[in-house]
Amino acid sequence: MVVPERDFPVVAMVGGGQLARMTAQAAIALGVGFRVLATDLNESAAQVCRDIQIGRHDDQEALTALAVGADVITFDHEHVPPEMLERLVANGIVVRPDPSCLVYAQDKALMRAKLTEAGIPCPRWAVVTSAQEAADFGDAVGWPIILKTSRGGYDGRGVWVIASSEAAGELIATARLTPRAVWLAEEKVAFTQELAAQVARSPSGQAVAYPVVRTVQTDGICTEVVAPAPGLSDEHATAAQTVALNVAALLGVTGMLAVELFDTPDGVLVNELAMRPHNSGHWSIDGAVTSQFENHLRAVLDLPLGSPRLLAQHAVMVNVLGGDLPDLYPAYKHLMARDPSLRVHVYGKEVRPGRKVGHVTVIGDDLDDLLVRAHHAADYLAGVIDE
Amino acid sequence: MVVPERDFPVVAMVGGGQLARMTAQAAIALGVGFRVLATDLNESAAQVCRDIQIGRHDDQEALTALAVGADVITFDHEHVPPEMLERLVANGIVVRPDPSCLVYAQDKALMRAKLTEAGIPCPRWAVVTSAQEAADFGDAVGWPIILKTSRGGYDGRGVWVIASSEAAGELIATARLTPRAVWLAEEKVAFTQELAAQVARSPSGQAVAYPVVRTVQTDGICTEVVAPAPGLSDEHATAAQTVALNVAALLGVTGMLAVELFDTPDGVLVNELAMRPHNSGHWSIDGAVTSQFENHLRAVLDLPLGSPRLLAQHAVMVNVLGGDLPDLYPAYKHLMARDPSLRVHVYGKEVRPGRKVGHVTVIGDDLDDLLVRAHHAADYLAGVIDE
Repeated sequence: MVVPERDFPVVAMVGGGQLARMTAQAAIALGVGFRVLATDLNESAAQVCRDIQIGRHDDQEALTALAVGADVITFDHEHVPPEMLERLVANGIVVRPDPSCLVYAQDKALMRAKLTEAGIPCPRWAVVTSAQEAADFGDAVGWPIILKTSRGGYDGRGVWVIASSEAAGELIATARLTPRAVWLAEEKVAFTQELAAQVARSPSGQAVAYPVVRTVQTDGICTEVVAPAPGLSDEHATAAQTVALNVAALLGVTGMLAVELFDTPDGVLVNELAMRPHNSGHWSIDGAVTSQFENHLRAVLDLPLGSPRLLAQHAVMVNVLGGDLPDLYPAYKHLMARDPSLRVHVYGKEVRPGRKVGHVTVIGDDLDDLLVRAHHAADYLAGVIDE
Repeated sequence: MVVPERDFPVVAMVGGGQLARMTAQAAIALGVGFRVLATDLNESAAQVCRDIQIGRHDDQEALTALAVGADVITFDHEHVPPEMLERLVANGIVVRPDPSCLVYAQDKALMRAKLTEAGIPCPRWAVVTSAQEAADFGDAVGWPIILKTSRGGYDGRGVWVIASSEAAGELIATARLTPRAVWLAEEKVAFTQELAAQVARSPSGQAVAYPVVRTVQTDGICTEVVAPAPGLSDEHATAAQTVALNVAALLGVTGMLAVELFDTPDGVLVNELAMRPHNSGHWSIDGAVTSQFENHLRAVLDLPLGSPRLLAQHAVMVNVLGGDLPDLYPAYKHLMARDPSLRVHVYGKEVRPGRKVGHVTVIGDDLDDLLVRAHHAADYLAGVIDE
């Protein structure tokens, strides 16, 4: 364990993935101590942190060890069992976001109920416990419908598009729900685009809203983010930011909150929540005054929040998904020579097909040019193109 | 020692100070391995790196251990004995900049001779070996003169303003020269402002020039940097960049080169050189497309260099010097609340009077406003002001 310098606090993050890795960069500038809970020393964040607790996120002993000497516990994912967090809180450990808040990121059925009760616009939804209930829901809202496990999914896992009552019956009969999960049925929204609205919120209630971004999902994985969302009306942009601020206040979020939204002609609808730095905000490292990672740290430390302002007219972030190139580094020469303004982020993860292994960002005034450059770079790193 | 992921190279940096600390941030994004040679685990960079070799920069064994498994050795200061570096090179280790180049940053008398021979504009200078020679030099160029030890000085140490032949005699009689150092006499230039021109240069000869900045030195320590240098004529700006590019090519620099310059009505004159990231380029973390730290890594790895373009019309960096506040962190609440666009960098160093413990950067269009904000923040962190 690293002894913190003087009175700078130590933030301990559950999870050793790329979100923790990028948070480590922000911690270096602020001078705050940063510790990660990683499953092994080769995890993305563990490669670049000195203060590492080895262990699993669902191991009470590991979580307790992580908390020793830390000023606040936070997360790079939502999968810590709530009762383990409650035990930390009962022992006087500061956990942000609070377990009572985090549960709405962990359980989509609880989230839907809470938001609907507060009048925050969501797709039509129902918890279904049988094939018949799913069929009734589909007949009511129209097929196809979405079926989701309320807990445990991410990056498109745990989400199915279901075209008929037969398909619903087959899924419910064969898929295995994680403990405490239920089936959540949702209408399949005819959206015009997908959006994400990110806010940072501190325990004292200060909040800042990042520009609303357009996200493109491919096979359930975020692949492209454009900030600000092109062509989004001021009315819908303000509505999206208001929804995010309202959700943050309603749930008492501390740290970053990402609200994924469907944009429709009738307004915006909440799709999913994440209470942590989120893929839709990676552009902020190179494209905003204050990155989402620094604002997450500032928020969980109850420091005043930094400006989320864009540094250019547009920012485009494209994820690098593992592809045919087993090694990313040899691609650097070509990419960096071709585009000296390209910002490359690589996570130190072993390349596997479809896995998020890095991202690229470009900022500037010509959106079409930025899109071409960012996609070229990501495709080249993935081995999809070779020139 | 950390096993590098797949084929990403490992850069090993001699020195565990704040320059290495900020280089570590850049290495995280690029995904390259980063190792530091630190004297102890509490050194600024060691606090935030996982791959640490403990040892001194003038210990051959420590240097050799640092090199094991590293692809390139580089530096956050110039004080490694050249013969130790030569020994590394003789053993097939890649050292960048090369020892034959680094010697011109280590020894100001060699630098003056080399640059003068190449026709690069310098103040009038002479190596003096006695009080009489110093007196003759002063009588020739006019008093006061500057006397410097050719080796071992930094942040104003090893530099004296000498008003008379008597003072020269007293200094030379009493001051102790470091081994192999000589006395370098220089005219005291009547400069209009001090400038720094930074370039990155790769082994293959590619180079990029950062905007020329104005630096303000207080008691020999850089305290303020404005990018680009305000009021600098295009002619002098181009001359300064040309000097830096010519010096880099002449000496065969790899990595970042900072050329500190005097601006005079008759043109620019070279003051000092640094072959590493430099205080005059800290603004580039928050104010340029590619920071000096990333470009140093890219250069020593022979990767194509990143754009040095400014992200706004102006950037202002002010150093935080240790002052009356023993602890910096409590100041964060006030500063961050007052100025959400302030970028704060703190180095994890114990606060001692006059010591560089951090810096702040602001970027934008209104230079006067930026100067006020940056100085306020630095003064507040130093305890010079309390509101």
